[in-house]
Amino acid sequence: MEMANEEPKTVPQQITMKGGDGPLSYAKNSSLQKGVVDATKGIIIHAIANNLDMDKFCSQSSSQTFRIADFGCSIGPNTIFSMQNIIQALEQKHHETNHGNSSTILEFQLFFNDHSTNDFNTLFKSLPPSWPYFVAGVPGSFYGRLFPKSSIHIGHSSNALQWLSKVPQEVVDFKSPAYNDGSIYCRGIEKEVTKAYVAQFEKDMESFLNGRGEELVNGGLMVILMGGVPNGIPLSHTAIGKFYDLFGSCLLDLTNKGLVNEEKVKSFNLPLYFPSAKEVEELIERNGRFSIESMNEITEQLKRGQPLPSTQNCISHVRAGFEGLIKDHFGTEIVDEFFACYANKHLQSGFVFGDNAVDNTLMFMILKRI
Amino acid sequence: MEMANEEPKTVPQQITMKGGDGPLSYAKNSSLQKGVVDATKGIIIHAIANNLDMDKFCSQSSSQTFRIADFGCSIGPNTIFSMQNIIQALEQKHHETNHGNSSTILEFQLFFNDHSTNDFNTLFKSLPPSWPYFVAGVPGSFYGRLFPKSSIHIGHSSNALQWLSKVPQEVVDFKSPAYNDGSIYCRGIEKEVTKAYVAQFEKDMESFLNGRGEELVNGGLMVILMGGVPNGIPLSHTAIGKFYDLFGSCLLDLTNKGLVNEEKVKSFNLPLYFPSAKEVEELIERNGRFSIESMNEITEQLKRGQPLPSTQNCISHVRAGFEGLIKDHFGTEIVDEFFACYANKHLQSGFVFGDNAVDNTLMFMILKRI
Repeated sequence: MEMANEEPKTVPQQITMKGGDGPLSYAKNSSLQKGVVDATKGIIIHAIANNLDMDKFCSQSSSQTFRIADFGCSIGPNTIFSMQNIIQALEQKHHETNHGNSSTILEFQLFFNDHSTNDFNTLFKSLPPSWPYFVAGVPGSFYGRLFPKSSIHIGHSSNALQWLSKVPQEVVDFKSPAYNDGSIYCRGIEKEVTKAYVAQFEKDMESFLNGRGEELVNGGLMVILMGGVPNGIPLSHTAIGKFYDLFGSCLLDLTNKGLVNEEKVKSFNLPLYFPSAKEVEELIERNGRFSIESMNEITEQLKRGQPLPSTQNCISHVRAGFEGLIKDHFGTEIVDEFFACYANKHLQSGFVFGDNAVDNTLMFMILKRI
Repeated sequence: MEMANEEPKTVPQQITMKGGDGPLSYAKNSSLQKGVVDATKGIIIHAIANNLDMDKFCSQSSSQTFRIADFGCSIGPNTIFSMQNIIQALEQKHHETNHGNSSTILEFQLFFNDHSTNDFNTLFKSLPPSWPYFVAGVPGSFYGRLFPKSSIHIGHSSNALQWLSKVPQEVVDFKSPAYNDGSIYCRGIEKEVTKAYVAQFEKDMESFLNGRGEELVNGGLMVILMGGVPNGIPLSHTAIGKFYDLFGSCLLDLTNKGLVNEEKVKSFNLPLYFPSAKEVEELIERNGRFSIESMNEITEQLKRGQPLPSTQNCISHVRAGFEGLIKDHFGTEIVDEFFACYANKHLQSGFVFGDNAVDNTLMFMILKRI
């Protein structure tokens, strides 16, 4: 989860999930994302089998190093599952390409990237003890360059690209026509607000594609999972929108109780944008460094395979993901009160992700570096 | 700072310096090592100028990536200074080789290695904000493999190789002829104890050289700094030996006060061995994967350039380096008492590193992968 460095002081600098491995940590509260990882395993194997030109990378030497990078890895365990899926796909492809007869040994070097404020200590400690792969953590924003030229064979990014590098300044400027009055996110309804968020998203996607364009070898693949909306549906009509409405209403409650400064609430917006598949496709085509090998929306598949998480899981999950944001903007002293308020509203409203709203889409793309 | 995983339960598993950046941290208490880094800068520049065949590495393409790894990096800031010195040497050499006319852009990818229990979070946060290099942290023991074959151009290791992968089991086994009765370190006097420590050191050096032999490119350089003793002088006659005597006597004091279990003290030895230059040379030659391009003992140079640290600095330095060891073996509750005892004895004895004893040597070697 990523943000850039040129931030106004009112919004957080770098978004990372809650560290450590305690009961409120992201490591213990990321089962929703795990469901996604499982659901996409088959598609990844299929995509690598069909889209990767293995011979092109394999040198004549007796060993071949594949370098795989996860952009916005957070602290595990999902990044570990994703890496394992990609390695399995590569080994399967290697085996099939050589009809089981290759004498070339594949070596894998895995790079885990996230912001320098990410809890890499916890990630490193949670790696499988006898993992036969070379491992490295790479601190820094994926909206900038992270690796040498043509050094990565497979890039991966899951649930990270909907996080913008920063909140567009206009939406928290009450003098601007794009001021996002009374909301903490891009609802997709107010024209000027949406325009500001879209501009930021386009700029960030361009930076991401340019960076990866330099870093991936020719013919290398990017596997991207990111949250989105169905074409033409505003975010506020979706399950995620309903969640942000509930989340934002807690800030108003705390303001009314005098616990939070009203100005602080007015200057708070989430650095998030959920695009449609159409928007993403257009940006990738305009950038021109990658071809789209496949683009799927996998909500339905996910739903079939996964039971809905329990209410308590949902609440813990929300805290693991958003505690850092609340703490950075409003201060440590308000964090417990805020999430107590949220848990209470969540329970009272009988709110369940996906109920009573349009389903969000989860876009799953395979891009090839051309 | 490294230890392997097959440890008996009486000795610590993985030695890392004290994390964070508080007043007792290694980051704030490593000025002795900083002196060494400064003193060796000129030698590194000279060594790279004379021993590195730059043309061999430089491809015909417009950019060239140099991969540099620091083995046993700890948490900074010294690892950062060392990397900067090596980069400066490489850039200078590149400039001279091409008479300032090269159009090849050098890219640097820097790998910081230490055990997975090292505080990488603090290291990552302390990297210079606009460092124009690609950076990665690599968790794992340098007595095993850490990188793909032929992927590193320059390796570096400072003040790390005197730490063994483990305490030789015999020296803490009171039934063994090698039982190290009444001492916590290899004094270099008791024949059987020394034999056990030497065997472990030889095994570890062999593992280190084999690992780096695989990972370095042909013609790549290893820059190694490590503590040692002058040929033929036992460690107990040196300044470091005197220090360990004082250090060990605090454990006896705490035992006499009933604060520490006697059995625990008897099963405690330091996983450290300080070799002579002759021993190290023989091991490198026997291994056969590296040629010794230069071997210096730099104590005198250091002394000329550096004022002795203050007593308070010494005490803080000792705690930063050894707190983890004491905590792991004797428990958190004894740590403050132990270092209070140590500080007291240090002050009373007027003990100063290097006084009243033979100087230790600091070996500085440049090895070339052949």
